[in-house]
Amino acid sequence: MKGSLFIFNTLTRKKEKFIPINPPFVGMYVCGPTVYNDVHIGNVRTFISFDVLYRYLLHAGYKVRYVRNITDVGHLVNDADHGEDKIAKKARLENLEPMEVVQQYTNSFHFVLQLFNTLPPSIEPTATGHIIEQIEMIETILKNGYAYTKNGSVYFDVEKYSQMHHYGKLSGRITEELIANTRSLEGQEEKKSPLDFALWKNAEPSHIMKWKSPWGIGFPGWHLECSVMSTKYLGETFDIHGGGMDLKFPHHECEIAQSVAAENTEPAKYWIHGNMLTVNGQKMSKSLGNSFTATQLINGTHPMLEKAYEPMSVRFFMLQSHYSSTLDFSNEALQASEKGFRRLVNAITLLETIQPSESGSINTDELEKKCYDAIQDDLNTPILIAHLFDAAKTINLLYDKKEIATKEQIETLKSVFKNFFFDILGLQTETDNNNSDKTNGIMNIILNIRKKARENKDFSTSDFIRDELKKLHIIIKDSKEGALWEYEK
Amino acid sequence: MKGSLFIFNTLTRKKEKFIPINPPFVGMYVCGPTVYNDVHIGNVRTFISFDVLYRYLLHAGYKVRYVRNITDVGHLVNDADHGEDKIAKKARLENLEPMEVVQQYTNSFHFVLQLFNTLPPSIEPTATGHIIEQIEMIETILKNGYAYTKNGSVYFDVEKYSQMHHYGKLSGRITEELIANTRSLEGQEEKKSPLDFALWKNAEPSHIMKWKSPWGIGFPGWHLECSVMSTKYLGETFDIHGGGMDLKFPHHECEIAQSVAAENTEPAKYWIHGNMLTVNGQKMSKSLGNSFTATQLINGTHPMLEKAYEPMSVRFFMLQSHYSSTLDFSNEALQASEKGFRRLVNAITLLETIQPSESGSINTDELEKKCYDAIQDDLNTPILIAHLFDAAKTINLLYDKKEIATKEQIETLKSVFKNFFFDILGLQTETDNNNSDKTNGIMNIILNIRKKARENKDFSTSDFIRDELKKLHIIIKDSKEGALWEYEK
Repeated sequence: MKGSLFIFNTLTRKKEKFIPINPPFVGMYVCGPTVYNDVHIGNVRTFISFDVLYRYLLHAGYKVRYVRNITDVGHLVNDADHGEDKIAKKARLENLEPMEVVQQYTNSFHFVLQLFNTLPPSIEPTATGHIIEQIEMIETILKNGYAYTKNGSVYFDVEKYSQMHHYGKLSGRITEELIANTRSLEGQEEKKSPLDFALWKNAEPSHIMKWKSPWGIGFPGWHLECSVMSTKYLGETFDIHGGGMDLKFPHHECEIAQSVAAENTEPAKYWIHGNMLTVNGQKMSKSLGNSFTATQLINGTHPMLEKAYEPMSVRFFMLQSHYSSTLDFSNEALQASEKGFRRLVNAITLLETIQPSESGSINTDELEKKCYDAIQDDLNTPILIAHLFDAAKTINLLYDKKEIATKEQIETLKSVFKNFFFDILGLQTETDNNNSDKTNGIMNIILNIRKKARENKDFSTSDFIRDELKKLHIIIKDSKEGALWEYEK
Repeated sequence: MKGSLFIFNTLTRKKEKFIPINPPFVGMYVCGPTVYNDVHIGNVRTFISFDVLYRYLLHAGYKVRYVRNITDVGHLVNDADHGEDKIAKKARLENLEPMEVVQQYTNSFHFVLQLFNTLPPSIEPTATGHIIEQIEMIETILKNGYAYTKNGSVYFDVEKYSQMHHYGKLSGRITEELIANTRSLEGQEEKKSPLDFALWKNAEPSHIMKWKSPWGIGFPGWHLECSVMSTKYLGETFDIHGGGMDLKFPHHECEIAQSVAAENTEPAKYWIHGNMLTVNGQKMSKSLGNSFTATQLINGTHPMLEKAYEPMSVRFFMLQSHYSSTLDFSNEALQASEKGFRRLVNAITLLETIQPSESGSINTDELEKKCYDAIQDDLNTPILIAHLFDAAKTINLLYDKKEIATKEQIETLKSVFKNFFFDILGLQTETDNNNSDKTNGIMNIILNIRKKARENKDFSTSDFIRDELKKLHIIIKDSKEGALWEYEK
């Protein structure tokens, strides 16, 4: 493979050449979901963005260890240091054991990500599975003087840390401004400074998810689990840390501070952040009623949705914008993507029927190079898809004999679709599913009847077939090699 | 629902009426897999057996909390107290981090169980997620005098326990005989008696999966996790504990001892054990080359398999024997089950077309009662399936107008299949999948063409359709209501 990946690093605010710390190995950590409700379509976008990065790295031949966690304890409502645990709250409302809530939404998360054809991570560790390791990291941070205990809780001392290190280096936040803008909140009185954050929280007697620790019965702070699990499985410093833009501050800023305080080293070389979704130009929010889950999108069960959308159309739609741009959701935009996706799928089908010529009138090497250039330019999937549309146009011209291609050129076209459409963008065509053989078999019977009818000038039968298939969104294309069927564009 | 469930309790060696401790709640714990290789078809059988129990309990209206664990540490090769951890060994052989092995085989386990249409448990806890709780239980057992420490390990003192309690009450083993039959094994020298088992093992420096404990760096004994996780999520005494027959001793015997030693109470009221698989009359074993995984069975990739088998045919095949009997696997038996399954599926399709009469010549109430009697008699699925075959025969007679049924009787037939075939036995018909609408649409076009052809006495077309569909294993049945298609019996 030619060329190298350049990726925008939030830490340096620059597009940088990707150079792994210990090639061919790449360690990548992505913040996973807090499993207390159905996965939000905005989260799905983030996981699809990092799936494309993971797929690109695998395609490029790296041996990738991809770790994505499951937050099953410690994430408090409003992402604060005080208040109820998100999962425990849901459990209380639904009269369930917290781990039942965790299981239910972990299952639905996996189900949804599978529908969108994302590859599972190499390791999917849970916060509750690493309580001992979290306690150990707190002990080290305390020993190094960057934390203090108060009433059975342990807080990270941001002021102390800032004397030696740069708190705010990832997010660009300035500590003085942050302090000036902090309102006094309930539960903050234990902290020396409002910027301090909990490493361990003392548990009220009513709290369900809690463990013994050197500071009493409690539970870990939300920021800690990612520091512990990323470095446990990827080493003290690893290649890539990713997540949604909303996690940049305070979550990722705190992760850096924790690692530096414990190990005197920053955890990740490249920090990558995916951008947010808007709906009809507005921020998604429960109060605006424009927030929907992945399942609602696929079933078309939200009032804002005109219809149900296929997971692959949605994935394609998301990849038509750059991961670092906001993406606006609308029925119009989704339906336009659906048509575009169908166009590419049809081109892939037609490509199988193209016969080679002695010479070629097209340039497939240039196409291939452009595709690599696009994906290697900070994963520019919209440009990559534009090149695939050009390729589809070429395939239609080849099909109509307005262009010709050599055997080698046809092979290159096929490998472009294999590498980019299937392997890197992670798209699937409908015929990937199990039933395609049977459907093909039945469709061949129909095409045979139609052929015979036309030979016998029985146009009422051939018209009937055409009209009825049209109702099923199936169309027939005639070619020298015989009739072909395809799903409507 | 009439009647009550009677279930064979290994603990009392009797079929007993099932009376939950705290109705309508039922707590059920089933020992899950050790995730270091692809799931064995024998394990799949166990999980399908308990899936039927779970489904029956849900159908009966109980609120069931079903806990099935994932063993991701502590299970040593040969189920012994000495030697390498199964997962760590696999990780070493494949040059992976142990948690990568865990993730890979947990994913494939979930994938396979989903193919077989088993319902996910309410909670699926992991051993590594409960190290603190395991340490706490060991501390209690030590405090109560039923364990001793040696070189950083902690062993359960079976002799001491036997002075006050009955070690062997579940399995019927007699401690004196067990001791007499024990060979001296490496790693046994730390124990006071060869029957003693590890609660905590001191870890060698090379050991990867290890944690701090009051006794030094180590890892929990294999039997402990189930005692800890079952009682954590289901209470000190819960209703049902299940697993494969091979776990009865020592695993389940040790669980009882641990619970009694820690809490002075037995963990479960009903102990249920599923029996093993044989292949062509022989025990499945790697050395005989007759051991295959669920995936090999579904893909037909093991040399012993004549073809690939559909997961639903396999599930049906397994349910045609009683969970507590051994089940012999052979290509002949599987293919016979395939045909039987197809017969039931076809009857379900035909049932939709039956028109009611004013009176009925059949007895559907008796059928329904017999089905409940069968499932309530220790989950007698083979008898239940025999009744469903009788029902299928009746449906064919109704279809051929040799019997008649009232509207009410037809509804009862439908509800028998809904309750027993789908809900309790957990079977699915092929038309449950997504593509069925499209297939139905295309098939309707074919049936219409055939109708027109026959009206026009164009028998060459209608014969062509019949012959070509036959090649796809699709047959057409004519009835007064028009032609119907179905997959071949």
